[in-house]
Parts: sequence; structure tokens; C-alpha cells
Amino acid sequence: MGNFRRVPVGVIGASGYGGVQLIRLLIDHPQVEIVYLGGDKSSGNVNGKSFGDIYPHLSHVVDLSIEPPELDKIARKCEAVFLSLPNGLACQMVPQLLDKGCKVIDLSADYRFSDLTVYTRWYGKERHDTSVAENAVYGLPELYRDRISEAQLIGCPGCDPTASLLALSPLLKQGLIVPETAIIDAKSGTSSGGRNPSTELLLAEADNSLTAYGIAHHRHTPEIEQVCSELARHEITVQFTPHLIPMVRGVLATVYARLRDPGLVRDDLITIYRAFYRNCPWVNICEPGIYPQTKWAGGSNLCYIGIEVDSRTGRAIVMSVIDNLIKGKAGQAIQCFNIMMGWEETQGLPKLGFYP
Amino acid sequence: MGNFRRVPVGVIGASGYGGVQLIRLLIDHPQVEIVYLGGDKSSGNVNGKSFGDIYPHLSHVVDLSIEPPELDKIARKCEAVFLSLPNGLACQMVPQLLDKGCKVIDLSADYRFSDLTVYTRWYGKERHDTSVAENAVYGLPELYRDRISEAQLIGCPGCDPTASLLALSPLLKQGLIVPETAIIDAKSGTSSGGRNPSTELLLAEADNSLTAYGIAHHRHTPEIEQVCSELARHEITVQFTPHLIPMVRGVLATVYARLRDPGLVRDDLITIYRAFYRNCPWVNICEPGIYPQTKWAGGSNLCYIGIEVDSRTGRAIVMSVIDNLIKGKAGQAIQCFNIMMGWEETQGLPKLGFYP
Amino acid sequence: MGNFRRVPVGVIGASGYGGVQLIRLLIDHPQVEIVYLGGDKSSGNVNGKSFGDIYPHLSHVVDLSIEPPELDKIARKCEAVFLSLPNGLACQMVPQLLDKGCKVIDLSADYRFSDLTVYTRWYGKERHDTSVAENAVYGLPELYRDRISEAQLIGCPGCDPTASLLALSPLLKQGLIVPETAIIDAKSGTSSGGRNPSTELLLAEADNSLTAYGIAHHRHTPEIEQVCSELARHEITVQFTPHLIPMVRGVLATVYARLRDPGLVRDDLITIYRAFYRNCPWVNICEPGIYPQTKWAGGSNLCYIGIEVDSRTGRAIVMSVIDNLIKGKAGQAIQCFNIMMGWEETQGLPKLGFYP
Amino acid sequence: MGNFRRVPVGVIGASGYGGVQLIRLLIDHPQVEIVYLGGDKSSGNVNGKSFGDIYPHLSHVVDLSIEPPELDKIARKCEAVFLSLPNGLACQMVPQLLDKGCKVIDLSADYRFSDLTVYTRWYGKERHDTSVAENAVYGLPELYRDRISEAQLIGCPGCDPTASLLALSPLLKQGLIVPETAIIDAKSGTSSGGRNPSTELLLAEADNSLTAYGIAHHRHTPEIEQVCSELARHEITVQFTPHLIPMVRGVLATVYARLRDPGLVRDDLITIYRAFYRNCPWVNICEPGIYPQTKWAGGSNLCYIGIEVDSRTGRAIVMSVIDNLIKGKAGQAIQCFNIMMGWEETQGLPKLGFYP
Repeated sequence: MGNFRRVPVGVIGASGYGGVQLIRLLIDHPQVEIVYLGGDKSSGNVNGKSFGDIYPHLSHVVDLSIEPPELDKIARKCEAVFLSLPNGLACQMVPQLLDKGCKVIDLSADYRFSDLTVYTRWYGKERHDTSVAENAVYGLPELYRDRISEAQLIGCPGCDPTASLLALSPLLKQGLIVPETAIIDAKSGTSSGGRNPSTELLLAEADNSLTAYGIAHHRHTPEIEQVCSELARHEITVQFTPHLIPMVRGVLATVYARLRDPGLVRDDLITIYRAFYRNCPWVNICEPGIYPQTKWAGGSNLCYIGIEVDSRTGRAIVMSVIDNLIKGKAGQAIQCFNIMMGWEETQGLPKLGFYP
Repeated sequence: MGNFRRVPVGVIGASGYGGVQLIRLLIDHPQVEIVYLGGDKSSGNVNGKSFGDIYPHLSHVVDLSIEPPELDKIARKCEAVFLSLPNGLACQMVPQLLDKGCKVIDLSADYRFSDLTVYTRWYGKERHDTSVAENAVYGLPELYRDRISEAQLIGCPGCDPTASLLALSPLLKQGLIVPETAIIDAKSGTSSGGRNPSTELLLAEADNSLTAYGIAHHRHTPEIEQVCSELARHEITVQFTPHLIPMVRGVLATVYARLRDPGLVRDDLITIYRAFYRNCPWVNICEPGIYPQTKWAGGSNLCYIGIEVDSRTGRAIVMSVIDNLIKGKAGQAIQCFNIMMGWEETQGLPKLGFYP
Repeated sequence: MGNFRRVPVGVIGASGYGGVQLIRLLIDHPQVEIVYLGGDKSSGNVNGKSFGDIYPHLSHVVDLSIEPPELDKIARKCEAVFLSLPNGLACQMVPQLLDKGCKVIDLSADYRFSDLTVYTRWYGKERHDTSVAENAVYGLPELYRDRISEAQLIGCPGCDPTASLLALSPLLKQGLIVPETAIIDAKSGTSSGGRNPSTELLLAEADNSLTAYGIAHHRHTPEIEQVCSELARHEITVQFTPHLIPMVRGVLATVYARLRDPGLVRDDLITIYRAFYRNCPWVNICEPGIYPQTKWAGGSNLCYIGIEVDSRTGRAIVMSVIDNLIKGKAGQAIQCFNIMMGWEETQGLPKLGFYP
Repeated sequence: MGNFRRVPVGVIGASGYGGVQLIRLLIDHPQVEIVYLGGDKSSGNVNGKSFGDIYPHLSHVVDLSIEPPELDKIARKCEAVFLSLPNGLACQMVPQLLDKGCKVIDLSADYRFSDLTVYTRWYGKERHDTSVAENAVYGLPELYRDRISEAQLIGCPGCDPTASLLALSPLLKQGLIVPETAIIDAKSGTSSGGRNPSTELLLAEADNSLTAYGIAHHRHTPEIEQVCSELARHEITVQFTPHLIPMVRGVLATVYARLRDPGLVRDDLITIYRAFYRNCPWVNICEPGIYPQTKWAGGSNLCYIGIEVDSRTGRAIVMSVIDNLIKGKAGQAIQCFNIMMGWEETQGLPKLGFYP
């Protein structure tokens, strides 16, 4: 295995689904060593517990306790820190962690916005770390690989924006659609809602049921619009509607948009998408007539994209599926981290799902 | 209970999900008696079996065998016949059943089209029963109650068109939207796919997964367009995309369309929908800010409709949920039958779901 | 429909799954009128809310608010009261409700034990209402119909004891098995755990998973043993192990016991079970070789029992299935109430499940 | 990575769940190369297809077609062959494959029985390859590691026997229980039923339902008894009852047995189990009071065992969970293969599940 040093990393917010996935993947990562697990202020009850008390099935491989986060200690032990905390907590820690020399990969919304007034408008929280936020890079490697490679701070997108943007980007970048006609109908499993108990996420409530939520007002909207606007080089408004699906994992984004050129056919778009994602090891464009299932991506860091054109309506319909906890969360964070470190982008990440 | 005669009815296609639901509901219907169960030519293996062999849990209440359909016998025994057969079979039986004096409620696609050339284009089958088809009424009582009350033959819509049309109709009828912007993202449980075994409907395949299918080409499209065009009083093309959801029952149609008047707000639409469905006992318009879940409708004949307006994008987003096997199938057929017979539209139909 | 008075009843604990099922069933009950809904002290946040705020899909049929329970008011308005509260709360209200002349059907464990020292040993709570408890009747009509018909207070068994006892009773009553060899492996859907949020009942945790719990110590054990001992006419210890199944509704109890007479065959047992349950409209004994599925019972008040004998091991294996929220909860309470009132035992209860 | 040769292997029965799991795991195995995929005679329709046509999500990593099995070609290309075929097919191929020098790991029942008369009695098929069968080793490495290391032919146990035997073996080996009191109540996900479509495995049928099957007659019984008898050193009869659980993956075996020594407590058994499995990297004994969930094992080759003693009844209750497709199928086969090759037993096998 050669003679190299493993990079010491920490995971803050270790008790949630983001945390447990990060830990699972980092354990198998050949160049990393987990040296620190932190809880979060919002769930004081996990601080001090051993990780194995919370996830007994991992007690034989993880021997760390979850500590109340102390920034000095974190910075002393870790070269890089993954933050998987509720929105609004990372921004209280990140400026100091950066000052102390850590690389930071944040999985919350705190550093996804270059313009903090947008954050404040949608998240209702004043922020004063403007310059820190301005230097953060949006952690979608398929679009921002170069900037990620030079960043100290990444604001990773979650599952819905990742699936949505991977489906929409080639269309916008190439100017193939009328941007304001873009509609994203997103569908995700309930693990996206996290591990804190709530009535609507109970199996008895959510199983064998289906509902839309956050219609016209969901907080993922502005970050999708920020990236889309950048791709289209002008301000864009998109329709984004998430749905809660009775399953544990997976996201499917069904994206509709009117084509500028009604003569474009499916094969044209497939060619364009393949070119766009040529250097992206984690994006697979399906063969003509094949539409992806979320189960295909389950357990892997892959995104599968299926493409159709409806010549009757003049629309492109693009479907993308990911595992919400891997490419939509922990896997993407590690993909970004690999790039920050100058490693192979695929390092330590699962390339085969667990189908069925 | 008074001194009335129960109307003798038959169910052809008794072994499928449509059949078993029809039978379950008709058993509890106060004015009906099931006197005949028929199989279908496509599944010869059920013919001759007792119904209780196929559904042992109903053997104590249903004492009939499933007979190979003989039209003379059916007509001799039944005043009305429910046909729940694969597409293309009903049209071989219905003309004679009508001639022999039966009322017919067909659950397949065979009699949903006033113009059989549309049927032939989408279903790939030549038809010669033009005049019969022209006299059939589309069995969506909320739109065609009067015509249903005078019909001898009903072509009942299935689950996706029912949910879609109940969501779209008020907008089109009142001219509130730009029709060609209408997009229907439909999501339905796997029982919509019927009871014949197929790999993609296995639990191991369909559970914890999610996919779109029939994109740009699904056969439900033309019947939705037929009704929409009638409401809008000109030819309309709609985008219809069905998705397979990992649950047994239920449909959610999420409908998007651009409002003509950007000044309309949610409360305006709610008022308009409530007026439109004022005399419809099976349609419930949700309070502002409440979005329906499929589970609410499970086990009942109700349709719940939630309404939102996105002032940023100028779109209405309307969500409707039904139980695919009741309001989307057997319940709707009985609702039509009640109207044909001059009975209360709610007779014998479940008004309370089985939540959770 | 004749000219009769509807009996005014109340439901305390209206916001949980027991409550919502009671309300759903009582609405359809032809001889009852719901006049009062009460919350419980443990969930103060529902008191004062309208029922439709908690269950929007029922807002069109239930127009009552959930009141903080006042015993005087309850007794003034209600002839009978259904209590669906966490263990330990009913016993604070029932003595006074009885004094004030109400009939009481309690769904908690508080009045299932004739000997309160057993209750105290397993539930860890001192009790002083000994004489009230002694006059309560265990609400399993198939065993105690006569006593229920004369009772003022019923302590209804929950889902696991109901399924277990219906499977075991004929064997014990007829002395067919060696009692101490009885093992009950019970499996139930997560709605049995109630509607209060908890991590282990989240869809993301409980779906696609399976576990046993409360092994060797579950609180349902002593009430099962109390009834079994009565049937066997001596003290009996049984093995009872519940499992959490990734589904919303349903219970399957698989019961194993060694037959005293190794010559007994399956048909013998089926004959004995049919005789035992001859006058029980809610118990169905399956044909030889047919084993029941929980789905059969879903939505109905029925219990299906399948029977097998293993001549190799000398054991009887008996499987019983019920809907945990109907025959295992609200339906059973109404069945008891029907008997208390001298009505038909089947009045107002669903006899057909919602399969599939 | 050093300079070693990858061992060429083939998978026959590549299109089913056993096949796809084998392929997924073998792709990641550092010492193996898949050089051949074969179909089976029973599903002629897959022969000739590319693997990617059947599993599109793997088309980017598997570039082989599924060939109609020709033994000469297989033997020429492969050093070892994994057979994942329906029962009764392997025995037509294995004798020749062995003759031609292949190592064979069979996942069917064909080579699990040292005494072929037992096979014939339970599987209803005459066999003439007696000496081949006698030299096959039962592929449960935790019990037969040494014999596996010297074998040319392995008959791998499936999911229920694996979970059952890992739970029971220490008790039997140490003589701690009365063997004839052993009852195995096994519960497994529907992927155990394979990928061929059948009505009872449809999501609409199997989801939200639960049933026992094969009671008193299931074909897994004799192989469990064969191993148990060997451990106990006399003929043993066990009660084995499988249940179909509404989930994709996972097995839980709940095992009950009367302890010979009523003074044994839980900690004693935990100590004994830990000693028994000391050198078994794939078996984890849970801490006292912790009971395993199938989800813990999902995606890994691990078996988690939880142990309880009921002092009231004098019984041990042991629960073991595995992933039915990994430790219960493909993973176990590879674990055996690793041992046959003299490699680390853990080579190429997932040690961390995909929780949640």
C-alpha cells in the first residue's frame, strides 16, 4: 500500500445521517484517518456518548466518542473538518476553523450563497461573515472542479439541488432552453429529513403516502437559481417543488423545460450531455429510451441522467437520480475533499450501488 | 330497510384489482346484488375457479365462481355490467351487451374516446364500433354528470387522468391559464400496474425506488387532452409524465401552469375551485397552505385538492390526490352507476379513508 | 331506518391512532353519535385544537374541538366514553366516570388486570382502585362475551394479546397442548407504537428493517398469561416476543406449542377451532393449507386463523392475523360496546378489508 | 498494489439477484477478474443478452454478455465458477466442471447434503452424483473453515439456514440446550424469493403484509437439521418457519430453545458465543441488552447476534441478522472462495452496511 501519511480529519454533527454516512465512507477511504467526532449544540444529548452507543452496529469499527465541539481542539487534531450540522450553526464555527488553518467542508446551507443577503432573505438569519462566505465555493464538482481545487471552504449542496442542477446545467450552459420555463419536480426519500423524530416522518405516516411540501417557497430554490443564473449569465427564476416519497433513500428530479430549437431531438441532447460530463466520473448518461431509477444509484456516488424530448410539446424532459445521502450529501463532500487535496476524484467513494 | 329490489349486476374481470375492489364495494352497496362474476379471455386460468380460491380472505362473503364470459347469460342475469378488463377486450363485448339491454360501465380505455381514430393512433388497434363509441360518456361525474345520467355506456377514466383532470379542469374551464404551459407530473402506487406478475412491479425492484415511465408517449395523454380541449374549447396539448411510487395505493398529480392574470392569488383560486366543485360530494378543496397527502384519500372515494400560487413565477401549482383503486377505478365506476340509476351519487361508497 | 335515538359517546385521547380510528368507525356507526372529544394530560398541545387541524382530511366530517378532559362535562354529555390514553392515565378518571353513570371502554392496560399487584409489578405504578379494577372485564368478546354484556367498565386488550389469545385459546381451553411449551412470536406494524415521534419509528429507521424488542420482559406478557391461566385452570407461563415489522398496520402472531396427543392432525384442530369460534362473527378459520396474511385483515375487524400440525415435531403451529388498529384496538372497543348495549356484535364495524 | 495475477472466475446464473450481487462484489475484489457470465437453461431469454441490457446501471462497469453455458468454454476460461441457479441445475454441470479442473462454489441446494437420499426426499429429484456430493463441503465458514480450505466444491447455504445456524450452533455445540425444543422463527425480505415475477412477490401484494409459508415442510429444514445433528452428535429435529417480510433485504432468525441449566444467565451465553466466534471476522455478538436490526447488516457480509435469557421460562432467545443477499448468498460464496484460495477471509467483502 506504499508508505504514506493518512490525513487526520474530523466530523462535526456525527450523530445524524450525514455524520454516519461520512464516517462510513471515510473509514474506507485509503488516505484519511478519522481522529475527531463532534456533536452539535442543538442536540446536547449526544455529546459525550460513544459513537457506538448511537450506532451499535458500528461499535466494532468506530472507537471514538462524540465530543462537544471545541474549535481549538478540532484545529489541533484535524487538517480538515466536515460539518454536518443544522443550518445556522456552521457559520458560528467556520471563520475560526479557517483562521486556525483547517480546510472545511460544510454540508449545511450556510456557505452555499455568495451573496449573504439572499441567505438572510430565505433563512431569516443575519450574518456578518461576508468575506468568508464570498471565498466559499459551491461544492458541486461537476461545475466547479477548478475552484474547489483551490478552496479552503466548501459549501456542499444537498440532495435536491445536486440532482436538479446536474439535470439542468447542460441545457442552460448551452442556451438550449427558455430558462423561465424550467420546472423541477423533485422527489426524495425520507432520510433527507434527517434523524430527529417528527410526526410526518414516522413510518406509519410517511409509508404508503406521498405529498408535496414547501411549494413555491422551499429554501433550496435560491441556491438552484444562483447556479442557474450563473450558467445562463442572467438572473433566472425556476419552479422547484419537492415531494416526500415513501422510501428511505434516493432522489429523482424530473426537469421540464421548453427547447429554444424545436428541431432538437433526443439523440442531440444525449450527445450534448455526454460531452458536458465527459470528465465527470460520477455522472452516467443513460442510453436512448432508458430512464433511471433511484435504486440504481442507491449506495453509490453516481448520478444517472435520462433524457427525453417531446416533439409534440417542444419540451426536454430530463430525469436525474442520486443517492440522497451519498452524491446528495456525504459522498459529494468527500468528492470535494478529494479535489481539494489533489487526489483522484473517485478516491474512497463507492462506484457500485447495492441493488436491489 | 324498506322494501326494495336490489339491482342484479355482474363484474367481468373479477380477478384483478379492479374486480376485487368492485366486488368489495358492491357487497356493501345497499341497492345492488352481485349475481355474476366473469373472467377474461386473457387469463383463462381463472375461469371456473371460485372467487374464494383467488382471494381466500373473501371466501366467507363471496360464493360465486368466475365464469368464462358468455354474453347471453350475462345479459339474462344482469341489469348492469362492470367490465374491468385489459384494453381491447371490452369493445368485443360491449356492442352486444348494449343490444341485449345491459347498462355497461367499462373501466378500460376502450370507450373513453369519442373519436376512435385517436384510440387507434395511441393503442394501435383498429375499431369498427364507431357509433357505440360515440354514444359512450366519459365517466368523470364531476364534469359529465348530466350526460352520465342518461347514458347506457360509460368509459371510466383511470387513476392518472382522474387526478389530473380534477386538478386542471377549473383552471381551463375559467380560462385562467395558458393551456399549453400545463404540465402534469403524476405519481402513482404500483397497484395501478395490476396484479399480473412482472419484474418491475416486484417488491424487491419497486420498493425503495422511483422512476418515471412512458415519458412523452403515455397512453393516458390523449384522453386528458380530449377533455382539456373540450373545457378550453380548442385543441390543447399537455405534458403528462407518470411515475411509479414505492407504495401500494394512491395517486398524486402535481399540476403546473402559467396564470394568464399574474395578479391572481391563492385565495382567488381556492374560491374558484370551491365554486366549481360546489355540487361534488367527492371533491374536497384544502384550506390555504394545506397540501394533500395520498394517505388521506386511501380507502375512500374522495379527491383532495391543494392549491398554491407562486407569485415569483406566475404559476399555479395544483395537487390532487385520490385512491387509485377507488376514485381512480372501482369507486368512480360505482359513482357513475349511481348516477345512471338515478340514485344518490354517494350511495354505497366509502367517505372515510383508512388512515394511517 | 326506524325512529331511534343515537347514543351520545365521547372519545378521550382523540388525537392518537386509537382516537382517529375510533372516530372514523363511530361516525359510520348507525346507533351512535360522537358528542365529545378529549385530549390527554400528556399532550397538552392538542387540547383546544379542532380535530380538523390535526387530521385535515377529516375536517369536513368532524366538527368538534379536542377539549381538556373535565369529568363532569364528559359525564353530562356522554352515556359512554372510550379512553385511548397512555397507560396510567385512565385509572385517574375511570372511578369518577363510573360513579357519574358512564359506561367506560378503556383501551389502555389500566383495567386489563383483575389483580392489581400484577399491574404494579409490570407497570411500576401503585394503584388504589382495586374494587373498580376487579369489576372491569377483559374486553376480548370471543372469550368473555357474557361478562362484557353486563359490565360497566371494559379493559380492552391491544393488538398483540388479541392476536395471541385468539390463536392460543382453543388449544388451552381444550387441554390440547402442554401449556409451558407455548411460544408466541408476534410481529406488528409500526402504527402499534403510536403517533408520538420517536427515532426508532421513523420511516428511515424502521423501513426495510426488522427487529425484536422487549424480549423476555414485554408488558403484554402478564395479561396473556392471566387469560391463558384462566383457560387452562392453572398458572401458566408463556414466551412472548414482539417484533417491529416495516409496515403500517397489521399483526401476525405465530404460535408454537407441543400437542399432548401426537396423533392429532390438522383437520382435527381446524374442526376444534371452528367449533370454538362458531358464534364469533369476527373470527375466520382458514381452509387446510391456507395461511393468513395480515393484508387480508387490513381495514376490517376480522381475525383470520391458519392452523398447521407438524407431525415430525409434534407441534401445533397457529397463525392469527388482525388489523392492529381495528380488531387490535378501536374495532374491538366498539365490538365490546355493541355487546354492552345489547346490540348486534357486528354493528357499525367493517367486515371487508381494503385489500390490496 | 504489487504485481499479482488476478484469478479468472465465471458466474453462471448471472441475471438473478445472486448473480448481480456476485458480480458487484467480485468487481471490487482485488484478486479476481470476472471473465465469463452464463445464463441458465431455465431462462433462455437472457442468454445472448449483454449484462448491461438487464442491469443498465451496471453497463458502464460490466462489458460481458450472458452466454448459454458451455462447460468446455467455462473450464477453459475460468479457474473457479460460481453457480447461482435454481435447484436441480447445478448437479447437471458440476461433475464435469470439477473433472475439467474448476473450483466450484454452488449457491443452490444441490450440494448441501452429504446424504443425497435426504435431498431426494425433500426436493423430489433423483440424483446419481453421489460421490461428488459426498466430497462437497457445506459452505458455512464459521463452522467448516478447515474443510472449505481443502475443498474443490462448496454447497453454500442460503439466507435462512445461515442466520439460523449461526444463532443455534454455539448452543448445540456446547450442549447447552435441549435440542428438540429448538424453534426457529425466520423472517426474510422478498428478494430472497428471486427476480422471477410471481404474484405474491409483487409490491402491491407483499408490501404492508406479512405471512408465514412452508410451515412444517420448508426445504431449508433438512439442511439445518443436518448441521445441527452434526453439532449435537445425534439426530435432531428442529422447528423451522419462514416468514415473508415487506422489505427488500435482510433476514432475522429468532431462535428459541430450553436451556439445560436453568441457572445460566445472559452474560454466560454472551461469553460463550464470543469464544465460539472468536476467530470469525464476520460475526458480531451484541452487547447485553442490545438486539440486532436487519438494517445493521444491510450491505455488509456481517452477522449480528443478540442474546437473551428468560429466567421465567428457562429459555434462551437468540436473534441473528444478516443481509440475505450478501452473508446469506453472494458474500458467503466469496468468503468461501477466499478460504479455498488461501486468501484473507475478509478479502473484497464489505464490512460496513449502508445504514440507513
